[in-house]
Amino acid sequence: MKLVTIPNGARDGRLAVASRDLTRAAFAEGIAETMQSAIERWSAVEAPLRDLAQQLENGDIASAFDFGGLAPQAPLPRAWQWLDGSAYASHGALMSKVFGMDPLPRDRPLMYQGISDRFYGPYDDVPFPSEADGIDFEGEFGVIVDEVPLGTSVEVAAAHIRLIVQINDWSLRVLAPVEMKTGFGWVQAKPPCSMAPAAVTPDELEESWRDGRVDLPLEVDWNGVRFGAASGYHMLFSFPELVAHAARTRTLCAGTILGSGTVSNENYREIGSSCIAERRGIEVADEGKARTAFMSFGDTVRMEARTRLGRPLFGPIQQKVVAA
Amino acid sequence: MKLVTIPNGARDGRLAVASRDLTRAAFAEGIAETMQSAIERWSAVEAPLRDLAQQLENGDIASAFDFGGLAPQAPLPRAWQWLDGSAYASHGALMSKVFGMDPLPRDRPLMYQGISDRFYGPYDDVPFPSEADGIDFEGEFGVIVDEVPLGTSVEVAAAHIRLIVQINDWSLRVLAPVEMKTGFGWVQAKPPCSMAPAAVTPDELEESWRDGRVDLPLEVDWNGVRFGAASGYHMLFSFPELVAHAARTRTLCAGTILGSGTVSNENYREIGSSCIAERRGIEVADEGKARTAFMSFGDTVRMEARTRLGRPLFGPIQQKVVAA
Repeated sequence: MKLVTIPNGARDGRLAVASRDLTRAAFAEGIAETMQSAIERWSAVEAPLRDLAQQLENGDIASAFDFGGLAPQAPLPRAWQWLDGSAYASHGALMSKVFGMDPLPRDRPLMYQGISDRFYGPYDDVPFPSEADGIDFEGEFGVIVDEVPLGTSVEVAAAHIRLIVQINDWSLRVLAPVEMKTGFGWVQAKPPCSMAPAAVTPDELEESWRDGRVDLPLEVDWNGVRFGAASGYHMLFSFPELVAHAARTRTLCAGTILGSGTVSNENYREIGSSCIAERRGIEVADEGKARTAFMSFGDTVRMEARTRLGRPLFGPIQQKVVAA
Repeated sequence: MKLVTIPNGARDGRLAVASRDLTRAAFAEGIAETMQSAIERWSAVEAPLRDLAQQLENGDIASAFDFGGLAPQAPLPRAWQWLDGSAYASHGALMSKVFGMDPLPRDRPLMYQGISDRFYGPYDDVPFPSEADGIDFEGEFGVIVDEVPLGTSVEVAAAHIRLIVQINDWSLRVLAPVEMKTGFGWVQAKPPCSMAPAAVTPDELEESWRDGRVDLPLEVDWNGVRFGAASGYHMLFSFPELVAHAARTRTLCAGTILGSGTVSNENYREIGSSCIAERRGIEVADEGKARTAFMSFGDTVRMEARTRLGRPLFGPIQQKVVAA
């Protein structure tokens, strides 16, 4: 099942189910008005939403509408909590080396809490105050959970993962190391993220939802040129492990989004990267200094993970960077 | 004007204005249903709320009710954003020294984003999974802003500070340094905070709202014994500076709460501390090791900042620590 949010003038938009090919959609009328209300009552709304999705697939809904031409909001346009990991060891190891920092721990997940009162829609222009801040994209996968009680185990955490999403976690690379060195994590370096059109139930990934990871390449194009296609599988810690880590001392409210961190593979020299900082890190490692500049106003980025058969899954993120 | 939130079964409770002595209250009926809705429409609701507060003060409201005996929710029971600073240099310097870390920068504010989907009410028991995590209180002041556009200056930021609150920022001290060393900030070490009953407009502080700081002692009692009474004034950066810092690369949504960090004064040996970690730090500095243990289940903490004339301001936080 694929869920999308249609703009209706309200901040949280209106929940709809979308067809598997993302060409058609139907409002979840009478089931849940918004994505947040759906995830808060997931056990009650899942079955009727799935019924609706099946009817839409069968062409049985007279009120279905064209979705392909629409500019949707993020499937969850704002969340009460966004916790982003950094679960790809190849990325972390390279970044620490380049920034001259101590190697990051590998015995426990890395995680910070980020801004969640706004997620940009997949086709929104994204405003930044200055090119000098080092504007960078970060392609990620994420999961949306229903309420996860404090102290939930990894095994139980897996069952709380209700939806999977594809995220662009925008980063400002000039500010990031300054904030990181304080130990307090990032505020200025992490403006709001963007989300691909559809939040999908894990079954939509079929065998590509494997070991609590998204086993699919995330294709990233910068200004129309392929930049990377790293697989989401190579997380040092799985999503259920990230969920259990976060729930160690807090109950996770329904609608909490947890991110994987920048998708990265050990063979980044061949497969490419999901953020510019990683490519620059490779350049520093190989050539002594970074050649690739960060983004300029007017630049575009496109990110999409499709199924193994090349079919649409979350839909693409396609955005332009603009001056605030 | 003092605003409080009365439990009504819904997560966000019901907004009321309280009398200056916090003994009586009246629902903000027809003006704003919740604190979040009030702060989102502040310029429209401020005048009618102030009128209501004045009528309450005059004894003109038939539907006014006793507030003194009630257990209110936090004035803002959940927020879309909670950004906590660490603005007291005396605290930061001591902590860095004790933990053997590099001195924290003094040229820019320190800030992290914390959990905001729940703030405990002032008299709620507070559950923790384990005493072994090093349970500690942190007495702070905070401000609630209406929407602050990206790039807002310090001067303009001051006008967005609509309400002042008193906060207990619970911390788990065994987990904190582990997370801090990663540079990612705190997730496990920072469970939800608690808030004193009333959010108050800056004019309620009279001359004690000075230079964008709360110039009043925060009296902290642990198990009924005075632990500290440090003044809120000694922030290295003012609240307007914290607001502008946060808004450097993001628009702050209405209802964003910004915290001062643990209130601390240079003369902490005389005036005492607002958290156990600071007292332990003093012990390490003076005696080579910490004597004071962190909190046990069943322990209580009370925090209150009164006006210079000793009158109620935010009301007290009075809580017991319990096993989750």
